[in-house]
Amino acid sequence: MRKDFPLQDSVAPVKWTGRSLKVLDQRLLPHKVVYLNCAAPEDVARATKNMALRGAPLIGCAAAYAMAMAARRGGLRDMEAAAPRLLKARPTAVNLAHAVSYMLEKGRGAASAKKFAEQMIREAESYYARDLQANRDMAKLGASLLWKKKCRVMTYCNAGALATSGLGTAVGVIRYAHYQGKIERVYCCETRPYLQGSRLTLWEFMRAGVPATLITDNAAAHLIKTGNIDAVFVGSDRIAANGDVCNKIGTYGVALAAKRHRVPFYAVAPISTIDAKCARGDLIPIEERGSEEVVKIGTHRIAPRGARAAHFAFDVTPRDLVGAIVTERGIIKPVNRHSIERILHAI
Amino acid sequence: MRKDFPLQDSVAPVKWTGRSLKVLDQRLLPHKVVYLNCAAPEDVARATKNMALRGAPLIGCAAAYAMAMAARRGGLRDMEAAAPRLLKARPTAVNLAHAVSYMLEKGRGAASAKKFAEQMIREAESYYARDLQANRDMAKLGASLLWKKKCRVMTYCNAGALATSGLGTAVGVIRYAHYQGKIERVYCCETRPYLQGSRLTLWEFMRAGVPATLITDNAAAHLIKTGNIDAVFVGSDRIAANGDVCNKIGTYGVALAAKRHRVPFYAVAPISTIDAKCARGDLIPIEERGSEEVVKIGTHRIAPRGARAAHFAFDVTPRDLVGAIVTERGIIKPVNRHSIERILHAI
Repeated sequence: MRKDFPLQDSVAPVKWTGRSLKVLDQRLLPHKVVYLNCAAPEDVARATKNMALRGAPLIGCAAAYAMAMAARRGGLRDMEAAAPRLLKARPTAVNLAHAVSYMLEKGRGAASAKKFAEQMIREAESYYARDLQANRDMAKLGASLLWKKKCRVMTYCNAGALATSGLGTAVGVIRYAHYQGKIERVYCCETRPYLQGSRLTLWEFMRAGVPATLITDNAAAHLIKTGNIDAVFVGSDRIAANGDVCNKIGTYGVALAAKRHRVPFYAVAPISTIDAKCARGDLIPIEERGSEEVVKIGTHRIAPRGARAAHFAFDVTPRDLVGAIVTERGIIKPVNRHSIERILHAI
Repeated sequence: MRKDFPLQDSVAPVKWTGRSLKVLDQRLLPHKVVYLNCAAPEDVARATKNMALRGAPLIGCAAAYAMAMAARRGGLRDMEAAAPRLLKARPTAVNLAHAVSYMLEKGRGAASAKKFAEQMIREAESYYARDLQANRDMAKLGASLLWKKKCRVMTYCNAGALATSGLGTAVGVIRYAHYQGKIERVYCCETRPYLQGSRLTLWEFMRAGVPATLITDNAAAHLIKTGNIDAVFVGSDRIAANGDVCNKIGTYGVALAAKRHRVPFYAVAPISTIDAKCARGDLIPIEERGSEEVVKIGTHRIAPRGARAAHFAFDVTPRDLVGAIVTERGIIKPVNRHSIERILHAI
């Protein structure tokens, strides 16, 4: 008998204990499963900044819990103080701002101060639950873009359970398509310098029983040209109002290769990733991180002493390279200002 | 007073001692400078296969010396026996076949058996010296493609002194342009999985005083889009008769980004890299190497146990993406079957 498709992955990237947020330290995966205890909003901001937790939707969920912790500690005033500290942890993912605004709005709109903290905790839990439901809806919708059996697909970075509330965006789509018997193999790009693809995405697929092969990022164009790839699915950290897709550095190069070889390139992201206030992709702030994260792998130095590296964390794929955007409300296709606006105003 | 442009780099990738070939073990760079002693053709084949030495022109030079060692050990018969063993060390770089054929031809054409070994050693030395002269000629010709001051250029993998007889192809061009005051900065892609860019190219530029910045391979498209890059220079392992350029895996992706943003993309390679017998790039055999080289960096495992990786060592950039090919005989531009044929028949 066929197993039911799981509602979420068995390893949760965060766990709310009722008082604190346990955060899976993703920097130690796949070798060790260790949870950090975040008892205050500052702990969540730190775990976000140092990438113990990462992935745009997950950053949003964790920030919602951080705001609930602030509410418990010092009410609305503490929430308002925590907000800017959380916001500056990572500049690119818009889900962070989305979650913080959502919680602030709920806090300001609370009818009474009575049981304020409990209310805010419920709001954070509901934010998390809705992300998980969005994952499931995207998984089904996205899988409908594959119509043949034995598809060979590619994904980039980690847009999986570990990047979200628990199932994934791009990875959720591929897992659901695999459940439907449509996936022959998924190729995961390793995604330097943090290696989210090799450490996280491959780990998720291997645990889920999806046939997965790792490639170096620089092999993506060659594989798209020669490997009969049927589609590319990626996540996103922010989608501009015109449909430009910001995602992990390297996504743009994969999209260029996909375009050249007429391989459909799809972004999968919840509505909270769309930044209606950002007109075009080139207006999205691209986080630059430290040189050390590039010149060392673990403790292993891979460049000469004194070497300097530029480290852009994200890039922008212009909408003309994006075949469709899969959201929990439906598939945006073609991708343009009007189709984005329509989905934002859909119920 | 301005220093003269060096005739070759101070660190030689191979040194002929008169009896054996000292091979710089490039796997240990930039941390250690260690030479392996190759006393027999089999040692050279092994050092080529395990990538202690690499780079198409250098593989050719080392093979020429290996053939000379065979000549000394067992005359023409030993050369003929050594040839296939050398040829199978690496399948993609055509310079290997070029050098082996060259030496066999010289061996078969030798007037007498008297001083045969000495003759073959002189031929290997002359093969090496001609590669070095070709490096110098390409450096000057290639630098002429940059006409403004403060150029920002990009290179991929290592097409430097360490990949050739001692100055480099793409790196030689950039060093010469820097000598002429035309280079503001060079960006080196790290080139996974062997990291030739971060370990070797960056090391060469830093030692030569050329301002250099490292990037992860996946950042190339973003930097070409946003970083005001003036040109990309790469080496090549084999150029087909129609102008398709085979080079280190990842080159194709960089070329696609360069094309999209109208940044000139140039290949720099000696005539020995052109394979007149190979009609098109898709006929070039692409070496596939082991999974272990991708899932581990040094002793550090970066993927789950049991993970499987596809590891293509090269890719092919179609000629329509190649702005020019710089050879020691001149610049091939535009790149097509006719212009390639013309340069092959030029003196």
